[in-house]
Amino acid sequence: MKIRALLASFGIFLSVLPTVRLFAQANTAENEDAFFIRQLHDAALSQGRCYPWLHHLTKKIGARLSGSPQAAAAVEYTRQMLDTLGLDSVWLQPCTVPHWVRGDREIVRIIQSDMGTVELRALALGNSVGTGEAGISGEVVEVQSLEALEKLGEAKVKGKIVFFNRPFDATKLNTFEAYGGAVEQRAYGASEAAKFGAIGVLVRSMASGLNDDPHTGGLVYKNGLPKIPAAAISTNDAELLSRLLKKSPVKVFMRTNCQQLSDKPSFNVIGEIRGSERPDEIIAVGGHLDSWDVGEGAHDDGAGCVQSMDILQIFKRLNYKPKRTIRCVLFMNEENGLRGGTAYADEAKRKGEHHLAAIESDRGGFTPRGFLVDAEAAVFAKNFPAMQPWLTVLEPYGLRIKKGGGGADISPLKTQGVLLIGYEPDSQRYFDFHHTEVDVFEAVNKRELELGTAAMASLIYLMDKYGLGQD
Amino acid sequence: MKIRALLASFGIFLSVLPTVRLFAQANTAENEDAFFIRQLHDAALSQGRCYPWLHHLTKKIGARLSGSPQAAAAVEYTRQMLDTLGLDSVWLQPCTVPHWVRGDREIVRIIQSDMGTVELRALALGNSVGTGEAGISGEVVEVQSLEALEKLGEAKVKGKIVFFNRPFDATKLNTFEAYGGAVEQRAYGASEAAKFGAIGVLVRSMASGLNDDPHTGGLVYKNGLPKIPAAAISTNDAELLSRLLKKSPVKVFMRTNCQQLSDKPSFNVIGEIRGSERPDEIIAVGGHLDSWDVGEGAHDDGAGCVQSMDILQIFKRLNYKPKRTIRCVLFMNEENGLRGGTAYADEAKRKGEHHLAAIESDRGGFTPRGFLVDAEAAVFAKNFPAMQPWLTVLEPYGLRIKKGGGGADISPLKTQGVLLIGYEPDSQRYFDFHHTEVDVFEAVNKRELELGTAAMASLIYLMDKYGLGQD
Repeated sequence: MKIRALLASFGIFLSVLPTVRLFAQANTAENEDAFFIRQLHDAALSQGRCYPWLHHLTKKIGARLSGSPQAAAAVEYTRQMLDTLGLDSVWLQPCTVPHWVRGDREIVRIIQSDMGTVELRALALGNSVGTGEAGISGEVVEVQSLEALEKLGEAKVKGKIVFFNRPFDATKLNTFEAYGGAVEQRAYGASEAAKFGAIGVLVRSMASGLNDDPHTGGLVYKNGLPKIPAAAISTNDAELLSRLLKKSPVKVFMRTNCQQLSDKPSFNVIGEIRGSERPDEIIAVGGHLDSWDVGEGAHDDGAGCVQSMDILQIFKRLNYKPKRTIRCVLFMNEENGLRGGTAYADEAKRKGEHHLAAIESDRGGFTPRGFLVDAEAAVFAKNFPAMQPWLTVLEPYGLRIKKGGGGADISPLKTQGVLLIGYEPDSQRYFDFHHTEVDVFEAVNKRELELGTAAMASLIYLMDKYGLGQD
Repeated sequence: MKIRALLASFGIFLSVLPTVRLFAQANTAENEDAFFIRQLHDAALSQGRCYPWLHHLTKKIGARLSGSPQAAAAVEYTRQMLDTLGLDSVWLQPCTVPHWVRGDREIVRIIQSDMGTVELRALALGNSVGTGEAGISGEVVEVQSLEALEKLGEAKVKGKIVFFNRPFDATKLNTFEAYGGAVEQRAYGASEAAKFGAIGVLVRSMASGLNDDPHTGGLVYKNGLPKIPAAAISTNDAELLSRLLKKSPVKVFMRTNCQQLSDKPSFNVIGEIRGSERPDEIIAVGGHLDSWDVGEGAHDDGAGCVQSMDILQIFKRLNYKPKRTIRCVLFMNEENGLRGGTAYADEAKRKGEHHLAAIESDRGGFTPRGFLVDAEAAVFAKNFPAMQPWLTVLEPYGLRIKKGGGGADISPLKTQGVLLIGYEPDSQRYFDFHHTEVDVFEAVNKRELELGTAAMASLIYLMDKYGLGQD
């Protein structure tokens, strides 16, 4: 009896799987590239440090909202870790960040409905004002969009709590598209409702599915309008509230204690390996060190930070001497101000730094899918085609290169003619965790995280070796 | 201030994402295919039933080892669910299955070591004999492979407990390759050790990483050798045991109560939509209904079962009338006998059924990567090229078609000239859950599961419409 058939009869099914080929002799440029990219993957999967670093950042430090002691600890921790890598330089780049605090746990409670009193699982939205100690009470009016709110107008909105309840479009393959199609409710709902005299806002959480976890996230108050308090409720509670509203009027009590305190000094954390031939050409890779103040900021964006750090660790371990300068940037304050990204771009401009490209990993530590490239039209036209030949060595790892968004922190570099590259992992699970209590270390798979490190290191290797279209 | 920039400054980063294009007018065959495949995805993501079905199979029924009451319940439940879909026929196909039972919770305890007494987290291997009530005690000898064991020989093995401790190779990109490179320790370790007089076997769990969950799975006893008891210990405990062995001799006590009882009658569950033009050409799709007796058999293989059922649900919902017969097969007894798969192939042969292809989903309910095709050489040569033009409409969904293994349950069809297709989801997380207490409903992401349904439905649509190379 053949081994395979025997094993199969006991449920031990050995697949005949195609293997990414190892090249015994690197005798052409393509083989050399394939060989080194394989080495980068081997190192990331067997000698990576991103996972233990993420453990520290999430379990020992925790949520790292800008201005918090934890954010300061994260700056110091990552600086110290970069210091251990034997880089050419590691430094802190100052920036001043907003300091918003949630205060006591929020209360959102149905106080009158067909079901009587019901506590709703809620999180105040970031940047929201508080309700004051006494809280607020009001009848709830449900809408599906800002347009629907406008149609209701002051007559039906004044004195009420507006409930924005349009769900994600489940048929969008990429969950970031579903997010993009719903997030204006969270971002602008409060000011739009205030325009018509509403006293508060509830928003259905920006989540892919139905569950009990409320998702916080930033809102934007419009100048000249009253700032009213806003909170997200879990998608399950949004469904419940909507069902109750179909039966009879519903009144809700809300109490939140959030406050915008005065700005605090903080830092981006930067480390680099200086280029041996073209040190003035910089390839930056980063994530953001801050997170919201719930959960542990594991996928958003501890993952992107430790991957970026690990890329330098692996290049050093493999004794790779880049031609160009490879820089890891851990940005502060992506979530509620983008002050780190802005400070980085400002300093780059002031110093006349030339960034060949900037890569951001801020879509979670999930299994790699590829890269999204964004730039001003002329920059894109020159550089995007130059990347296509690399697909030969990237596709065996499931990596594609497409047009798409780079990342928030690197976006201020766009007008400086920098090629922006967003690392794209699989998106299906991201909005189960984004901005919630469940975005914790355990939600990140070690191998998926490490493969992201390897994917970005591979692209950086190719950019470093071949440059881009402008050369 | 532009909306995108304003949002970005509050951490709300809207990606410019490439969308899978919707074709307003389906005026060519390719557009028609793209359009229908988009409809299949929309239906799976918004009207799928696989997720609630999986909830019932896992949370209400639970682990479903062949011969158990739960396996019988799973047969009845899935038959009833298929009965609700308005299919042309639903039936049970008898098979006789082994009935192995674990008995009382196993004890594996270090009773002499540098650390004193330590309980190890263990699961007896499927098909293993028990130790008897008194248990066994013996000194542990560690090896990394069957070859290393042979080198030690009887002198160093007789009367001892052999500990197989070769880990997965973390650098294998596909975790099934890492599994294939380690699983002979679990499958053959017991008989190979018995050959040299060992009294018991411990195996490092077949797992991707380090954690506390032991992984069970089948072993194969070789005829003519003593059957000695064998258990898997968690990878963390394997590391501990190995460290202790480096310091001083270690003695272990094992007690397991497993038993092989007499065979039981059971069934495959089958439902089909009969083809309108070529009803005698069958496209089968399935998973296996049984699981090991720990956890809930969610990824292995509740996922494959409910996806296969949902494919028929979606075709019916979209009022799709296939030319060929599309059949869902829920196989019994993949884990410890393959009796369902064998019975299915035997009956197909006896009835002279012509299977165009058989698809199996048994690699977990993870995000789709594509399909692996396997067949006898001539069949492969004729059919594989015929599938390549379909990549145009499949690649926008991240689906590729490669040479590779089909699946255990469909493997007996291979000699009948059937094209075997393994549905391939992303493999990174599978061996965190496989055969463990943590393979539960909560480990399955709804969207990832549904996308698997859609991926297979898309391929079936193309095979049904265009046939394959033999036409």
